[in-house]
Amino acid sequence: MSFDEIEATSTSFDEIIERRGTHCAKWDKMEAVYGVPADTGIAMWVADMDFRPPQVVQDALQAQIDHGVHGYFGDDSKYLAAIQWWMEHRHGWKVDANAIFTTHGLVNGTAMCVDAFTAPGDGVVLFTPVYHAFARVINAAKRRVVECPLTHVSGRYEMDFDAYDAMLSGDEKMVILCSPHNPGGRVWTRKELQGVADFAKRHDLVLVSDEIHHDLVMPGNTHIPMAHIEGIEDRLVMMTATTKTFNMAGSHVGNVIIHDPELRARFAQRMAAMGISPNSYGLIMATAAYSPEGAAWLDALTEYLDGNRRLFDDAVNAIPGLKSMPLEATYLAWVDFSDTGMEQAEFIERVEKSAAIAANHGTTFGTGGESFLRFNLATPRARVQEACDRLTNAFGDLQ
Amino acid sequence: MSFDEIEATSTSFDEIIERRGTHCAKWDKMEAVYGVPADTGIAMWVADMDFRPPQVVQDALQAQIDHGVHGYFGDDSKYLAAIQWWMEHRHGWKVDANAIFTTHGLVNGTAMCVDAFTAPGDGVVLFTPVYHAFARVINAAKRRVVECPLTHVSGRYEMDFDAYDAMLSGDEKMVILCSPHNPGGRVWTRKELQGVADFAKRHDLVLVSDEIHHDLVMPGNTHIPMAHIEGIEDRLVMMTATTKTFNMAGSHVGNVIIHDPELRARFAQRMAAMGISPNSYGLIMATAAYSPEGAAWLDALTEYLDGNRRLFDDAVNAIPGLKSMPLEATYLAWVDFSDTGMEQAEFIERVEKSAAIAANHGTTFGTGGESFLRFNLATPRARVQEACDRLTNAFGDLQ
Repeated sequence: MSFDEIEATSTSFDEIIERRGTHCAKWDKMEAVYGVPADTGIAMWVADMDFRPPQVVQDALQAQIDHGVHGYFGDDSKYLAAIQWWMEHRHGWKVDANAIFTTHGLVNGTAMCVDAFTAPGDGVVLFTPVYHAFARVINAAKRRVVECPLTHVSGRYEMDFDAYDAMLSGDEKMVILCSPHNPGGRVWTRKELQGVADFAKRHDLVLVSDEIHHDLVMPGNTHIPMAHIEGIEDRLVMMTATTKTFNMAGSHVGNVIIHDPELRARFAQRMAAMGISPNSYGLIMATAAYSPEGAAWLDALTEYLDGNRRLFDDAVNAIPGLKSMPLEATYLAWVDFSDTGMEQAEFIERVEKSAAIAANHGTTFGTGGESFLRFNLATPRARVQEACDRLTNAFGDLQ
Repeated sequence: MSFDEIEATSTSFDEIIERRGTHCAKWDKMEAVYGVPADTGIAMWVADMDFRPPQVVQDALQAQIDHGVHGYFGDDSKYLAAIQWWMEHRHGWKVDANAIFTTHGLVNGTAMCVDAFTAPGDGVVLFTPVYHAFARVINAAKRRVVECPLTHVSGRYEMDFDAYDAMLSGDEKMVILCSPHNPGGRVWTRKELQGVADFAKRHDLVLVSDEIHHDLVMPGNTHIPMAHIEGIEDRLVMMTATTKTFNMAGSHVGNVIIHDPELRARFAQRMAAMGISPNSYGLIMATAAYSPEGAAWLDALTEYLDGNRRLFDDAVNAIPGLKSMPLEATYLAWVDFSDTGMEQAEFIERVEKSAAIAANHGTTFGTGGESFLRFNLATPRARVQEACDRLTNAFGDLQ
């Protein structure tokens, strides 16, 4: 499909929706966090999208408001059935309804896993650079982050298990995989997933597979759920959510899915002890989203995002010294500035001051991120184009 | 004000809104929990109301849907300012914005307090009978419930600290007060609150004051925040919420307010470790509710509830052997069946089978609740009348 055709079928994603002054973290906090001016800056950091969710989700929320009584949520059977339908129809994965726990998003989900399956002082393995909230909750819970750096092979991330085996000290109890990977956008192959599973078994680790980006896969790539890897089920915790796929982070729901009875019982016990039960809006929106209407919207979205990705990569890779890692999934471009020869402070200054773009600093994601910035491409294409133009100008002296 | 005048000024509360089939716990689960038929039964158990919230809340939610981008919530300064405004204008209580933590409702809030301020095996004191979720989270967290039974004096609950002093073993670390009290509807006096504070100091306990019903006070009574009791601030945790006052339990937000720096730091550390941050809808609704419009609605509501209370008490107290405890606050009537001379199974059978009313069993609330049922009166008056008629018939042979 050509660029023109994609644009013609997805005009709703082209709409510029003003998010300033709407309690939006991405737009309203960029000045405080990065010094990028609120009036002229482009917010490309926090991982949400500048799009509305599918109409079916808006309609479900509207029905709730029209009814108007906002009391305790009861029967969640339709919600659970919607999750089962989605996992089977989009991912070929059969989920037992009894295996599903609903947490307050997946930061809380990750924290609940750390709480349930490790003790203070235990090591938790991360493949870095990786989503920054993992290390935040591990440290806050007084566990120990064990960084296993991804290797940079032919411009993309791979794993080196021989090296990781040598790095472990024996007090590690858990490994958290981000699949697809944020940042870097890898869709891990079956062989790589098998490698992670074998690594978890070899070191007797609970394997938490955060698959929140599993629906945001670029055309031509196929995500494999870790649950499809043989022999791992008895130590596996899967995490999924509607929040990233359908842009409803504000609804704060996520699913921790555990098929192993013993791990499930331990998790359930901690859910009860922490008094965790979901808000109504998250359940209502998720039930609506996991539907044929939601699927059609998602197909259009991923094509649009792929168009943004191609536009961005073409422009950025044309700037000498900049290299955007090829995204197989996610809308989060991971750009390496190391070949500019600049210090970190200089390329950040150019992006934030000259281009007035707020992008996540690579160091936030742990070891290996030092020469990178992460750019969120889930915004109308005209804004991606504007960002490309600004970056080209900001690094124009390198031409 | 006469009955007729109250009814004339509050017709919106008279509207019967169908809640069956809307994921409503109170109506949709009563058949499964109590065997009360969904089609003919009256749901008077779960503590939410069959009313819509103030229009200002509905409008705020509508504005969010109309904007339609549901990403990460950022600036919460208006939310915090609304809480401060409400506490000062309705309760004369000055709250430091930095003292406010937003939890996922107050079951989660209670659980976070237990988690932050006690260790497994520690005792947590409850004045029973009391809100059932307290014991549930204490037990799930492997702490020990220490029941200090309320005394039944002149038809209402009081506290006997001499008796409680003798019951403690020394390994208690926390006391949770429900103020106003659920069930029983006591608005504690300053002298009683001082007694709780002294008790907490004498036994070196953190005092958690759950004031979720503080706005639902019947005309002629005045709630005193525990924060106004001298000399308790360094061991005090206050809990409040919009969810009970404005009937928005589905939004799952509550506030844990801690002015003491050391307790606050310990709580903040556990909030970070558990990855707790609020959903957008709860913040949006609460910001709208804590307003002059919300206050005017609340004033009309409490008058309406007081009318329901008088109607119900008059009818129930006319049945030989039944006695409804005079409510100073809450919409939860606490009815004593002990003078019927019936076994618990018999009066429950009459209420559930003959009257087809789902009411909470008193035993759920701990020691002292055995001869009671709790009836939720926050429903259109016609339905309260119907419940009264059914109860009168179900116990008609006692006339």
